[in-house]
Parts: sequence; structure tokens; C-alpha cells
Amino acid sequence: MTGTAWRTRTTDAATPEEIEAIDRWWRASNYLSVGQIYLLDNPLLRQPLHRDHVKPRLVGHWGTTPGLNFLYGHLNRMIRARQQEAMYIIGPGHGGPGLVAASYLEGTYTETYPDISYDERGVQRLFKQFSFPGGIPSHVAPETPGSIHEGGELGYALSHAYGAAFDNPGLLVPAIVGDGEAETGALATSWHSNKFINPATDGVVLPILHLNGYKIANPTVLARISDHELDSLMRGYGHKPHVFVAGFDDESHHEIHARFAALLDDVMDEIAAIKAQAAEDPDMDRPQWPMIVFRTPKGWTCPAQIDGSQTEGSWRAHQVPLSNARDTDEHLRTLESWLQSYGPDELFDESGAPTPEARAIAPQGDLRMSASPHANGGRVLRGLRMPDFRDFAVDVPSPGAGPEQATKQLGLFLRAVMDGNRDNFRIFAPDELASNRLQDVLDVSDKVWQAEREDDGTHTGAQGRVIEMLSEHQCQGWLEGYLLTGRHGLFTSYEAFIHIIDSMVNQHAKWLKVSRELAWRQPVASLNYLLSSHVWRQDHNGFSHQDPGFIDHVVNKKAEIVRVYLPPDANTLLSTYDHCLRSRDYVNVVIAGKQPQAQWLTMDQAIDHCTRGVGIWEFASTVPLGEEPDVVMAAAGDVPTIEILAAIDIIRQELPELKVRMINVVDLMRLQPEEEHPHGLSSRAFDQLFTTDKPIIFNYHGYPWLIHRLTYRRNGHSNIHVRGYKEEGTTTTPFDMAMLNDIDRYSLVMDVIDRVPSLGTRAASLRQDLSDRRLAARRYAREHGEDIPVVANWVWPDADEDSRRALQGAQSTGGDNE
Amino acid sequence: MTGTAWRTRTTDAATPEEIEAIDRWWRASNYLSVGQIYLLDNPLLRQPLHRDHVKPRLVGHWGTTPGLNFLYGHLNRMIRARQQEAMYIIGPGHGGPGLVAASYLEGTYTETYPDISYDERGVQRLFKQFSFPGGIPSHVAPETPGSIHEGGELGYALSHAYGAAFDNPGLLVPAIVGDGEAETGALATSWHSNKFINPATDGVVLPILHLNGYKIANPTVLARISDHELDSLMRGYGHKPHVFVAGFDDESHHEIHARFAALLDDVMDEIAAIKAQAAEDPDMDRPQWPMIVFRTPKGWTCPAQIDGSQTEGSWRAHQVPLSNARDTDEHLRTLESWLQSYGPDELFDESGAPTPEARAIAPQGDLRMSASPHANGGRVLRGLRMPDFRDFAVDVPSPGAGPEQATKQLGLFLRAVMDGNRDNFRIFAPDELASNRLQDVLDVSDKVWQAEREDDGTHTGAQGRVIEMLSEHQCQGWLEGYLLTGRHGLFTSYEAFIHIIDSMVNQHAKWLKVSRELAWRQPVASLNYLLSSHVWRQDHNGFSHQDPGFIDHVVNKKAEIVRVYLPPDANTLLSTYDHCLRSRDYVNVVIAGKQPQAQWLTMDQAIDHCTRGVGIWEFASTVPLGEEPDVVMAAAGDVPTIEILAAIDIIRQELPELKVRMINVVDLMRLQPEEEHPHGLSSRAFDQLFTTDKPIIFNYHGYPWLIHRLTYRRNGHSNIHVRGYKEEGTTTTPFDMAMLNDIDRYSLVMDVIDRVPSLGTRAASLRQDLSDRRLAARRYAREHGEDIPVVANWVWPDADEDSRRALQGAQSTGGDNE
Repeated sequence: MTGTAWRTRTTDAATPEEIEAIDRWWRASNYLSVGQIYLLDNPLLRQPLHRDHVKPRLVGHWGTTPGLNFLYGHLNRMIRARQQEAMYIIGPGHGGPGLVAASYLEGTYTETYPDISYDERGVQRLFKQFSFPGGIPSHVAPETPGSIHEGGELGYALSHAYGAAFDNPGLLVPAIVGDGEAETGALATSWHSNKFINPATDGVVLPILHLNGYKIANPTVLARISDHELDSLMRGYGHKPHVFVAGFDDESHHEIHARFAALLDDVMDEIAAIKAQAAEDPDMDRPQWPMIVFRTPKGWTCPAQIDGSQTEGSWRAHQVPLSNARDTDEHLRTLESWLQSYGPDELFDESGAPTPEARAIAPQGDLRMSASPHANGGRVLRGLRMPDFRDFAVDVPSPGAGPEQATKQLGLFLRAVMDGNRDNFRIFAPDELASNRLQDVLDVSDKVWQAEREDDGTHTGAQGRVIEMLSEHQCQGWLEGYLLTGRHGLFTSYEAFIHIIDSMVNQHAKWLKVSRELAWRQPVASLNYLLSSHVWRQDHNGFSHQDPGFIDHVVNKKAEIVRVYLPPDANTLLSTYDHCLRSRDYVNVVIAGKQPQAQWLTMDQAIDHCTRGVGIWEFASTVPLGEEPDVVMAAAGDVPTIEILAAIDIIRQELPELKVRMINVVDLMRLQPEEEHPHGLSSRAFDQLFTTDKPIIFNYHGYPWLIHRLTYRRNGHSNIHVRGYKEEGTTTTPFDMAMLNDIDRYSLVMDVIDRVPSLGTRAASLRQDLSDRRLAARRYAREHGEDIPVVANWVWPDADEDSRRALQGAQSTGGDNE
Repeated sequence: MTGTAWRTRTTDAATPEEIEAIDRWWRASNYLSVGQIYLLDNPLLRQPLHRDHVKPRLVGHWGTTPGLNFLYGHLNRMIRARQQEAMYIIGPGHGGPGLVAASYLEGTYTETYPDISYDERGVQRLFKQFSFPGGIPSHVAPETPGSIHEGGELGYALSHAYGAAFDNPGLLVPAIVGDGEAETGALATSWHSNKFINPATDGVVLPILHLNGYKIANPTVLARISDHELDSLMRGYGHKPHVFVAGFDDESHHEIHARFAALLDDVMDEIAAIKAQAAEDPDMDRPQWPMIVFRTPKGWTCPAQIDGSQTEGSWRAHQVPLSNARDTDEHLRTLESWLQSYGPDELFDESGAPTPEARAIAPQGDLRMSASPHANGGRVLRGLRMPDFRDFAVDVPSPGAGPEQATKQLGLFLRAVMDGNRDNFRIFAPDELASNRLQDVLDVSDKVWQAEREDDGTHTGAQGRVIEMLSEHQCQGWLEGYLLTGRHGLFTSYEAFIHIIDSMVNQHAKWLKVSRELAWRQPVASLNYLLSSHVWRQDHNGFSHQDPGFIDHVVNKKAEIVRVYLPPDANTLLSTYDHCLRSRDYVNVVIAGKQPQAQWLTMDQAIDHCTRGVGIWEFASTVPLGEEPDVVMAAAGDVPTIEILAAIDIIRQELPELKVRMINVVDLMRLQPEEEHPHGLSSRAFDQLFTTDKPIIFNYHGYPWLIHRLTYRRNGHSNIHVRGYKEEGTTTTPFDMAMLNDIDRYSLVMDVIDRVPSLGTRAASLRQDLSDRRLAARRYAREHGEDIPVVANWVWPDADEDSRRALQGAQSTGGDNE
């Protein structure tokens, strides 16, 4: 990296030569953009344009592209003048052709894809591949050098930009926000990101709001409010707006360039002044960061009218303005003169390569935005310095020890991770860090807070590696930007509300899937979730807080990308998270409880269990390993595990002749066939564990159907009876929540009795007794507002008194209520 | 409804008696709120407080509640003075106890739940039931009279409020926005709702931003920016802010009340002036609607300090400030004096009922916000005046007619629905109405647009029943508010991006589930989705636009609530949508293509097919009804249906001896067992259709696993082979998309051959031929950028020439690219 960041102005105003170079860049990139959308052949118009030179299927988006190209050229001049390291984020992902054009002009495209050579043949291939089968998408995508931000679903430009800027103090991230995108919720709140960035230790995001006035078929809100309202809005968000309007009158392009170059110099000087101040005083009050309002016609420089209707400056320029270029002579001629208006003859040399003059404004090497190492995060990724997670083990002298809070224990481990990685590891949470019991990390890091600070016990400070804002979109977007630029982190959320970013994790998983297919994209750290305050312990917050469906959502993504873990206690959670933090290119979903609960495995056992992902718990089974059981009782998830163990304890006492094998599943993907998921158990291994002919009672954390969806090809599938959350919830006690959904110990034993007919009359009477106990437990809760000590009888044969006491609280109403 | 809306001031400033009455209301509702959180018994402190009177498990939220109670009392005075109809929206749903307290004081609670009587016993029950097993949730919920807005997941207060205000010109909707909630994306963009509300024909939303400074464990952003920035932000959003600060010094409560009453009078006068102006000029320019910034201490009026730490005015007041009230004498005494500080002895009469003085400020009858008919929308719901959908049928002389655009045809029907229901039907879309081909509705309605208007061909106007903003959150939130206040509508979106509101549909489905269990909640119109631009025809926009997983998401919700329809052509779409618009209390997900495609069923056939939900298509089968097939070929979804029909056509020609039964599924829930879903087929009916022993090739619109999840209990399940979207996508041709995911005709015939071993060597050679044809089709697309006319050979035996020509375009690259 060669940039020397944050120089104040080193040159006078842009010279006429620079202005001319910017204009050439703009024309060249516009030409290359239009060419991508329309041309199959004859890329440099060295023959008269014939309809066969036009693509049969015109796909792409012009409207936003000329504005993006304009800005890219100007940013290039600034980067050269100041040797400023920068990475471009394009909110209007529809501007795909623009970023491809820029990276071609800069040479990066040919370096990345040598087949797209720097000559006429290369230009032809560049054009043809765009939005073409076997080619590249129409939006900015992983295939685009210099990008970390997919175009398609809109709203995340600023979150991604700030994520990239964190802990990159020398990096400028110009982030183009489309005025369509600006209407989304995610984008609307992301302007407040400036309350979470430190001017000394982080980079700088320069938001550029591109007002081109129209979406697909509608005007945009921000282009249709008064200048005063827009100015107030930006100031209200904490920015100092610089307004630039161009393209609506006869002002020459050179005059426009001169005006914008001067404005960008002013803006960069303001930024440099802030950085200089922050270097003196890292705890300075939040500055008013500059931003640019950039108002231009939509489709700027395209034909003013097509078929008698206004096109430039209209919604009609959104996509492909000349849709009949292949079909009518008039459209064909209009296209040709449009292309010629950029002067291709002076932009490309005899071989067809862009001339040195056309690309003169571009910087060199890694300073080219299309070649930014940050935009290929794996290139700059450093592994975490990991503490030994075994050092954070809880002591489990015998199963049922404790109680311990699994996530609190994880917090101690994460505190050490954070302490050892103070420049590339962050934790993001929507006001739920402490509620999810990770508050010990605050011993080594404040929560960064650049709004007004008070001494109020909230652990907020001018710097910090924890970021909390009550916006799941922001947490997700920041983390994505942070990971894709080569750093590490995790997102902790309540399980129910992580659905708020369902669509974002979709897009991130798609990004990872495609990136893995591109050799030049280096692996990045996985996106790690810690979901706590989960469905079974939101008894106090009620139905609105109870939803385990995120698992179902993510398992639809590509198997190579998605991992789901349900560690049943603290040591398994530690082992799981150590693995996740070391992994690359995955989406790891880890769900674990925060309440005090009994502990089952020693650290050695936990490591062994997590390595296998699924295994028989011999201590809980009533039949030795290797001997055939009468029934298999399996659990995935911490509370379902408690209940299945309690059910087995009842069986041990009441039906001692019944041979029970207990299985715990920590890695949910082990259930899938190995052909479907890299973690899938072989058919033989599955059959050995679950048998092919014995009843299987499977107590599951989430919606029960998912277990069927994962196991429907398994030999024993028809024997599997799944209990899980069936959308029955309310404000009640923890054990009542279990009973409402039939995952409770009594229901499980009744399920066993129903499926093992040989048990006879004693079982029938037990069944009645359990049903009565169940009703009594429900009645008790409704009378007293708390659970009966239902686990009092639940003790391992060799448990000592301490375990006995601990167990009595295993599923009680203890713990906090957030 | 008795309100006479928008009176200008009819009284002078609030009288001392009114101020006193407001204060009594505030004290009474605060007392009742604290009581709900803490007390199991001794509700009016008529004995000394004993620890047994305290709930064993303290659950609930105090922090936001006193502010909500304060505002409720003041709004009551205003409502009485102006006889103004109003409905309260509480963003901070944590204020559940406050709204329960208000409705109890107003008498509504006892009217709704007679068991919660208006005496000491009733107060005791009111307290006990709160956050108690068998009782009511801690948040505002369907159980709460006067509510349409669940507390829990945050962010939708303003969207819901505006949804309620649309087409209710006399209604005021005070909407309390919490400063935590204000950080969410959904809320941040919803301030712009004022660009979509008409001052003459819609009601008025009065946003009240409640700055109490803290979330669970963090300060809030908007409470920690300068007064100037906050003022700018609100003005930037188009509002005129009125700032009110109280509770931070020694000002008496009476003085505070007097100040706020005067401010509220000013605000209401401003609103009345706008309404008066709008009555003169319904097309007036957008006014600057007033809003209130209401800054108070968090937990206002609770103990200033607890255990030596600041509590009032701190994040520590968020939930239950005295968590040990049952365990320590000190906390118990603090609780008692806190409760006594409200003066219960003068607020409740001898019987324990609130005194007339304590509730004197409340209005009467339906003017009570807790009794607003709008908040129990089914009470005011009028059925739509429905045109006959048969009038919009497309002509299908024989299967394969057309091509027609299904959603465009639906647009013609919806135009008639809109024309006939100009006061209670709306369509919401995120800039996708025309792209999804519903643009014909614009013949009878503009898109409402209260930002600056231009003559730009976008059909935007001062009034309109179509609302487009590029925010799925807004579309969903507005529609929810509109439906829950007793009106009708639909939301059309691209299929992939509807995931943006996954979490919102969760919450709405939960609301409906609970509402159906409450006899006093009348059924409301269903939430109808039209998802188009679906996964199979986003070939041009690429991978980021391809995701059919919303179906998977919604089917986890309660079966009574959720319906999923995949109409295969225009007539089935019309029949389906007619049904959806007449239905109540459902979430209807309808997925249909917008591209020109072949048509299969006449309107009579379509009605019959939709009534059954699943059926054999005899015209496409090669075996008569009643005769056993060799193989069943089923499809759900328009493109999968085309491909299965094309596959059968290949079989018809190449393997004429093979007996094929073709089944189409339009109502996906028919696949589930009848015990699992009200629409589920009986086991017998399923077996008769699908057989129990023949191979079933099922071509499905979405992720294939869902079909297994729905059918795993079916007898023939092990014979079902599902093809669907397996997350393989890119920018390519439509047919290449099908091939990438193996749902194409060639793959389907190969699947048949692989599963019917008796076919012998001729089939083996056909298999090779199909594999070659498939490769050739892929190659052609990569060379030419469009599909080969793959369907040229696909003609029904009795098809005429027109059908023949139409069929050739059935799955071509036609259509537009948005």
C-alpha cells in the first residue's frame, strides 16, 4: 500500500490538462458502458453499425452509470494528486457497467481476466460478456474487481462503506448512495453511522448522494423535497452537505468538471483538517463530516429524446433507453450517434486499446480503486491471534454440574480474543450485547460512541471495538463490510429478531458462493452469528420474541456456505466458537442460551463431541455403546437437551427395562446426507447412530419440520418423531413454554410409550400419571407465576449432592428477563 | 363515531381543574402500571406491603411507561375539548402496562374482559394477569384494547400509524416513537410517510418522538445529538418540530402539565389550520406537519436511586428497577413508597374502583382511544364491491393458447376492483407496480405523491390509491396498518426482495393468530401478496434477484393463517386473487409470472382447478383418468408447469407407450396432511392422485426440500423426486436458468427414464439424445445470448396453428427486463 493519507491540498486547482483528462476518462468509461449494454460486435465502430452488431437481448442499466463514471474520474484525479488510498462503494448497483468500464480502463480487468485483453478483441469480449449467458451479471458483483458491494437488493451502501472504514485509518471510502436506495429503511438509518466512527483510528466515508431524480417508474423522494429540507436532513444526520448540480443547462462539460474538481478539493481539505485535528486529539468531539449532494439528469449524456419522449433526465433512461436498436433503423442510427458522441476514435488506439490519454487520470498500482486490496479482503486478511479456548472451560465434575451461563462463559473467551486482536476484530449488537451476556468483553473495550458522551455506566467511549446500535441492518451491514475487507467479527442478536436481516444474509451468502468460484478472490473470515435469548427462554417477553426460523432460512443457501450449530452447554459453545472464528467463507449460525443451566460435558468431551458434530451420550443412555436400544432419544439445542435428559431420567426410574440410546446433535448439518452437505453423515454412520428400525424421538430447538427436511432420505426416516417449536407461545414460564409445544419431559416419555407397544400396562398407567403431572405443572404455573421444581427427581445414578442441587435449577425460572 | 374532527381551539387554555384531572389520570395510570409489574395481591395497599404480595417473577418494562401515560392523559383532554376522534400507536411496545392501565381507567378493559371488574378484586386480577402464565403479555399485544401495534420487534410505529390514517380523513393518530426504535431502518425511513398522505382525504399522524435517552444498556442516538441537529433532522424529514423537555429539574408536575397542554393546543391548532386549508384546496402543496419532541427522564417518577445507583433518568429504569422487591426489605419498602407516591387512596374508591375524578379527563364511548373502532378493524370492515373476475378471463381455445401476461391480466381486474372501492382499497409497491405489470390500475388512480410534482409521465398526483416508495418496510407497514383498521389491499413485490420484510410478516402472522383466539377481535381482510418478477424470470437481473425462499419462511407460521398459491396461468391467477380479496385473517402469498406465456385453462376450468387446489390435467396426461399411470409428473408454479408439459410432449413423441399422469398444484398447502393444515388433502385423496407406488417427478417453483417437508408423511413420499431451485443462478437466458437447476424438460424426461427401468434400451438412447440437446441449448445461449426455439416441437396433438405459434414463444426470451 503506497498511499499517504490525508494530505491537504498539494496542487493548485485542477489544471486544464487535468480537466481534459477527466473528460476523456468520462467519455471513455461512458463509451465502454454503453458498449457493454448494446454491442455484440464492432466494438469500436470501425465499421458502420449494423443491426447484427447489436445484442439480441438488451439487458442492463444506463440511468445511473454516467454519474458514477463522472465521479470515478474525479476521484481518480484526487487520488493521484493526494496519493490517497480509496475504495469505491456503489450503492446504485445498477451501475455495473460503469465499474467494469473503470476497471478495464485502469488495466485491472485485464490483469484479473487476461482473456479480456487490452485491444479491440478484448473490448469486444468485454462488451459481449456483459449480461450474457456465461458472462457477467448486469450489476456490480463479486466478479467485478474493486467491489465488495453487490448491486441488486438496495440499501446497504453506507453500512458496507463504514464497515470497510473501521480500523483502516488511512482509507477513504467514497460511497455513492442512489436516491432510490435512499428510500430504503436500511439506508435511511445508516446515515447515523457517523456516530460510530472514530476520526483518529478509523478511515473516512465520503457519502455522495446521487440525485438523478427517478427510480424504475417513479420520482425519488429526496429529489423532490426542497433544497432547504434536503440540507436540513443531511445536517440532521450530522453531515455538512456540499451541493453540486450539473447537466440541466448548457454549461460545458469542461466547466462542469472544473467546478466539481474544486468542490472535491474543498471536501478533501475539510476531511484532512478533521484527520489532523484527530491526530492531535483522538477523543475529539464528533466532527461534522462532509458529504456531497450530486444532482444530475438520469441517463446524463444519452439521447435527449427517443420516440418523441424525453429520455435523458427521465425515468425512461433507467434501463436500456433504445430497446429496439436491433429492430428499427431509427434506433440503430440513434445508438450509433450516441456512441460516436463520446469520440471513440480519439479514445482507443489502433490496436483498439484505450489510449494513454484516455486513462491518464487513473492512479497506479494499488491506488487504483479497482485494484484496492481492501476490496479483495482475503488479500489483507490476517488470522486472529487466538487464546486457548480450553482455558475458559467450566468445570464439569459430573453431568448436570453447574449451573453456568453458556454465553457468559463465551464472553470471557471473546474478551481474550478481543484483547489479543485490537485492530481487526469487532463485535456488533443491536443493544443486546449485555442482554446476551457478553458484557465481559467491555472490560477490554468500550462501545464506540461518537454522539454526546456522559458518565452513565454504559461503557460508551470515543473508541471501542464493540458497536451497538438498535438496527440489525446496521450491525449486519457493518460486519459484512468489515469482513469483506479482510477482518473478523461476530454479530450477536436475539434469535427472533435476526429475521430482520434475512434478506441481507441471503445476499451475503450469494456473494460468498460466487466468490468461492473466483480463484482471484481470497477467502475471507466467516460471518459468525451468536443468537441467544432464544425461543425457549423468551417466555417472559412473549410470543413476539419467539421465533427459531432463522435456521430454516439459512439452510436454503448453498451447503458449502452454511453451518448451523446448537451447542448444548458452555464447553461445547466454546469449542464451537473457536472453530467458527478460525473458519473462512462460511455463514456460521450458533444458537446458545444465556440462562444458568446445567452443564453436561467436560472440555475434552466437548471437543470430541463438537468434532464429531453428533454423538451418543453414553452417560445419559440406559444401554451400553454397541448394544441395540429399544428407542433412540435425540436432542439438538440446549433446552431440548435438558428435557430429553429429564425424560430419560423418568424412564430410568419408571421403566428401567427400556433400553434408551441418547444422541445429541451439535452440528445440525450432520443430519443431511453427505451428498447434500459437506458435513453430512454417511448413510452407514447415520444408521449406526440412529438405527434403521427403532423409534427415534427427536427433541429439536426449532420448527420440527426442518428435521424431516434434513433426514427424509435417511433409512430410518419413517421412525423419526420430531418435537419442536410449533408456533405456540405467550408470556409464561420456561417450563410452560416447553409444555405448550410438547417438548417437555412428560410429553417425551409419553411419546416413547406410544411408540414402544411392548411396554404393556405398567407403561399405560405411567402415561396417565405423566399426563397428570403435566397438568399439575401447568396449573402450578398459572397459580404461582413460576415453575414447580420439576427437575427435583432428575439426578444421575452417581450424581453427588452438588450436582443434585445444580440440577434442580436446570430449567427453573432463574436468570434475567431482558 | 361521534367525533367532529379538526376543530380549532374551542376552549381557552387548560383550566386548573383540567390540569388537576390530567395529573390524577397520570398518577392513576402510573400506579396501575407499577402495580401490574410488581403486585400479586394487596393491589391498593390497603394492608402494609408484604413480600408475598409481590410477584415471584418480576417481568415487564417500566422505563417508557410514565411518558406514555403522561401523553395519554393529555391527549384525552384534547379529545374531550375538541371531540376529536383519535387512535393511539405506541412504538415503544414495552409500554404495555401503560396502555392496559389506560383502557382499564377508561372502562374499556372491563367491558372487554368482564372478569377484570371495576373494583379491588378486578384491580388485583389486572395486576396478577400481567406477564403471568395464562395472563397477558408484557408488551402491547392483540389482547390490549385499542391497539393495532404489537410491541416487541421495533420499527413500525409510523408506518402503522400512516396506514391507519389513509382514507380516514377525520382520524388523528398520535404515534409515539421511542428513541430506541428510532434507530431502526424501518422507522428511519418512515418519517418520509408524509410525502404520501393527502391532507384533505386522509387522516393526520402526529409523531411524538419520546426521547428518554436510553435503550436496554445504551444511550440512544437521537437523545445524544445537539438540539440543532435534531431540529434539522425533523425539518429535513418535512416536519415542524415542537420541543418539550420536562422532568429534569424541580418544576412541579402541575406546571409541566400546563406547559404541555398549551403545546398540544398549539399543535392541534396547526393541524386544524392545515385541514381547513386542504378542505379548500385538496391539491395543496405538502404542508409542514407538526411533530413533538418529548424529552423526559427514563422511568420518570420512579425512585431516583436504587442500591446507590441512579435509576430514574438511567438505562437502569428500562425494565424492572426493583428486582429484589420480594427478597429484601429495603427493596420492598422502596416499592411501597414508590407506589404510595401516586396517592392511591385518593385515586380509588372504597370498592377499589378508580374514582370518577381519577378518570375525569377521559372522553366517552368510541372517543376513548382504548375503544377506537379503528383499532378493532373488523368492526368497521366493509366487504369489497367485487367485479366479476370472469369478465377478465383470457380466451383459451385450446391448451397452449396465448401468450398472455398473467399479472397484466390481473391488473385489469384490479383496476375494476379499485374503481369500485375508492375509499377502502389500496395497492402498495416498492417501485415495482409497473414492472410487475399492474400498471393498468393507473387508469383509475394516480400514485399518491405529496413531494414536488412534475408532469413527467409517472402518474403521480396529489391523490391516489396506489402508493409506491422504494421501501418494502413501508409498503408492508402501511398495508398492515390499513388492514388492521378495517380496509383492504395488496402488496406487490419482486419475489426475491420480499425477504426484506420476513420479520414483519412473522409479527403480523402472530398478531392474526392471537387475534383469532379473541372473540372480541373481528376478522380483518387478509394480507395479500402478489410476488412477480420471480426466480425463473430474473435471468436478466442475475443471482441477486433470484430467491424463492419466502414460501419456506411463511409456511412456518400457523397453518390457520398461511396460504400459498402458485397459479400456472392468467385465468387461475384471476380466480385465485378473487378468492384472496374476499378472504379474512390470512396471509395469502400468490406467486405469478409477468412475462408472455402460454395459457392452459379456460376460466371454467381455472375455477374448477383453483377450487380443488390440485388436480390432474387430463389434456396433458397420456393416460385417461382412472387408469393407473406408469409415472406421475407434477408441477407447481408457472415455469415448472411449462417445463413439465414440454417434458410430457417429448415423452408423447419419443416414448409413446409410457403412461403419464400430469398433476398441477395451485394451492401448495393441499400437499400437507389434513391434520396439519386446513387445506390439506386427505390421505386417500392424495394417494388417489399421486398413487402410492409410482415414481413421481415433481417440478417445483421454489427450493425443492419444501415439497419433501410438506409430504414426508404421505404414503408415496419415498417415490417423490423433486426438482426446484437449488441456488444456481446468474445472468443468463430463461431456459438456461431452468437447465442450471435441472427443472428443464430434458432433465425431467431423463429423470423419468432413470426411474422407470422397464423402458429399456430405446429410452437409454433417448436419454443420451436429450443430454446432447441440453448441451446444445446451453451452447447456443452462450453463443447467441438468447434461447434456441426449444419449444418448437412442443404441440398438443390437437393444437391448431395459432396455438402452435403461441407455444413457440412460451418460454422464449420475450418480455421486458426490469
